[in-house]
Amino acid sequence: MKKITKTLLTLLVAFASLHAQENISFNKPKEIISPEINADNSVTFRLLAPNATSVAVSGDFLPEGTRNATMTKKKDGIWEFTTDILPSELYTYSFNVDGLQMNDPNNVYYRRDVASTLNVLLVGGGKADTYKVNNVPHGTVAKRWYASPQNDMTRRITIYTPPGYEESNSSYPVLYLLHGMGGDEDAWQTLGRATQIIDNLIAEGKAEPMIIVMPNGNISQTAAPGESDLGFYKPEFMLPKTMDGTYEATFDDIISFVDKNYRTKANKSGRAIAGLSMGGFHSLHISRYHPNTFDYVGLFSAAIMPNPNATSDVYKNIPETLMQQKKNGYKLYWIAIGKDDFLFEANTEFRKMLDDMSFKYQYVETEGGHVWRNWRIYLSEFIPMLFK
Amino acid sequence: MKKITKTLLTLLVAFASLHAQENISFNKPKEIISPEINADNSVTFRLLAPNATSVAVSGDFLPEGTRNATMTKKKDGIWEFTTDILPSELYTYSFNVDGLQMNDPNNVYYRRDVASTLNVLLVGGGKADTYKVNNVPHGTVAKRWYASPQNDMTRRITIYTPPGYEESNSSYPVLYLLHGMGGDEDAWQTLGRATQIIDNLIAEGKAEPMIIVMPNGNISQTAAPGESDLGFYKPEFMLPKTMDGTYEATFDDIISFVDKNYRTKANKSGRAIAGLSMGGFHSLHISRYHPNTFDYVGLFSAAIMPNPNATSDVYKNIPETLMQQKKNGYKLYWIAIGKDDFLFEANTEFRKMLDDMSFKYQYVETEGGHVWRNWRIYLSEFIPMLFK
Repeated sequence: MKKITKTLLTLLVAFASLHAQENISFNKPKEIISPEINADNSVTFRLLAPNATSVAVSGDFLPEGTRNATMTKKKDGIWEFTTDILPSELYTYSFNVDGLQMNDPNNVYYRRDVASTLNVLLVGGGKADTYKVNNVPHGTVAKRWYASPQNDMTRRITIYTPPGYEESNSSYPVLYLLHGMGGDEDAWQTLGRATQIIDNLIAEGKAEPMIIVMPNGNISQTAAPGESDLGFYKPEFMLPKTMDGTYEATFDDIISFVDKNYRTKANKSGRAIAGLSMGGFHSLHISRYHPNTFDYVGLFSAAIMPNPNATSDVYKNIPETLMQQKKNGYKLYWIAIGKDDFLFEANTEFRKMLDDMSFKYQYVETEGGHVWRNWRIYLSEFIPMLFK
Repeated sequence: MKKITKTLLTLLVAFASLHAQENISFNKPKEIISPEINADNSVTFRLLAPNATSVAVSGDFLPEGTRNATMTKKKDGIWEFTTDILPSELYTYSFNVDGLQMNDPNNVYYRRDVASTLNVLLVGGGKADTYKVNNVPHGTVAKRWYASPQNDMTRRITIYTPPGYEESNSSYPVLYLLHGMGGDEDAWQTLGRATQIIDNLIAEGKAEPMIIVMPNGNISQTAAPGESDLGFYKPEFMLPKTMDGTYEATFDDIISFVDKNYRTKANKSGRAIAGLSMGGFHSLHISRYHPNTFDYVGLFSAAIMPNPNATSDVYKNIPETLMQQKKNGYKLYWIAIGKDDFLFEANTEFRKMLDDMSFKYQYVETEGGHVWRNWRIYLSEFIPMLFK
């Protein structure tokens, strides 16, 4: 054994150097930290670009109407910009170098939204602490495939089970959480931080332990981009069969799968459905079309208007089925939208229709528009009202 | 209801335009497809960079010793490069624009390796078809947290259960699959394509249905970077407690968790352990230190030398415990390494020691070095030999 003993240090130096060959981008100057969250919750961005003549940072932390902030060249070719003190939030950003947009090579944390991928950063000390992984019990997040016999498809689905689920014999209520156009079964987890939000709300005693089911609402996809046999293709914003009624009409395939495979409270009082934008549209129609199935409905910035070109039975008799939903009874019908959302007016008119029908709902109006920032807030507010 | 009916088209145009505000990088020229896998398995890369004076692409598809390939400016400011016909493989790459490395803004598929993030592309028609998501039954991939009482920690773990696991009452064998230095519980899934490999091998009838457990071998981490309460920090290559014996000594916490929470064949003949580099080191020592636990051991480019500075009992009596492992018996001890691996010599000497002890093993020598390309191949060859 002595014969083969070398110092571990020698081994590791060799290892790191060879490893660098594999990681063609591994040899970055070590000292660059970007983004750096400063003690006062301002953020400093840095980029090594010695040959650049102009570098800027774009991001949703900038004041509204500001497209980007100019970075300043410091020593050693490092460009820098420090923001104002920022409110607690999960932000996305990218750099612009001599007119070319690029991601931050010193930040390995990304989120994909449709066909663009941006770096993320999280400023804590406020509401975004709910979006963090904290030192609390964590649920399990599973990526599974379920059979949808009505669509003759096997489809990928994200399922969160709460801490303690595996060790208990209890039954749990279920929130069906639906993404918007351009999203998929990963979106609420990656962009929406839904699994962190539920972990944290349960730990704080603000939420009932629940299962969260995040299906793929694009009925022409079996799975999120890169997770199906289509391989690594360039994702598109609009897909065939979008909002044509198929998803809503066959949603009971998902409910059956979940009730069969998990210990659920398999009745109306144990089920909630909510979604953002197209997912709000889906939640509206699924909860109408499958009567007596959901006691809790959440419409987040919902695209509530039916598709006039869709011929599906799902979109027929909307007032009648809403009236039936009212008669059946429900515990919460929750509508939230931002003042700047392009769907604001449509939601106002929809609420007027509900008012005319004496269809009860709760309404929350926030700042801002049609953005994930709002949807994380809505989810954080919606979950504590469920299953109490 | 008529009052609020607008055409869906109007809605979607408005939606896409507002959505673009959120996605600050959404408005890319639609026509750019990069990378494009051509019919002959050459690949064309494209980048819109009208102001650049020099653009190149780096990647592990280039001939050895070639650092990058110069791209050519075509019309409309688009730079382009087409490779030779490429062997089937999962490749990584990045661009270099006037000296600045950047990712491909038209490719949303990334893999993180320690602190660098590179784009990936997959050329099919050969062995990389095993790394693809194919139209076959898929297992479930769960991210869970398990208690490690010996370390007084709760830690994140990736667990694959094969297709049909949830519907059956059978017990399944378990492969414990360990990452290398700089890796974590995500590495075998993201860089190693382990869950695609096992899905495909099971579907082809080449592998027994099995559970694959991918723990985090960095005992100072609770979870992969970005998945713990440390937030979004810059990952480091070497961590405290690396190869100090703690992980090996407490590995039975993981086995106990798995045997308690899954329907496993909870004995030696139902257990395999394998790992790459540091994970090979771990597999060597865990299989020695926990005698009669594993019938199958795989050392992929293993860093087999003990840390001379480690004082743990784990690294004492290595020849004696190997001799004991030999006496206890096992079905497969499999060693694989590339000819260019910096650990090649150390593995040769280790095999000589095994030879001197008449400790039986199978040995596979491949081309190439200390790279994921080899580890995917090794896994694809190792799995079919298990549990038969």
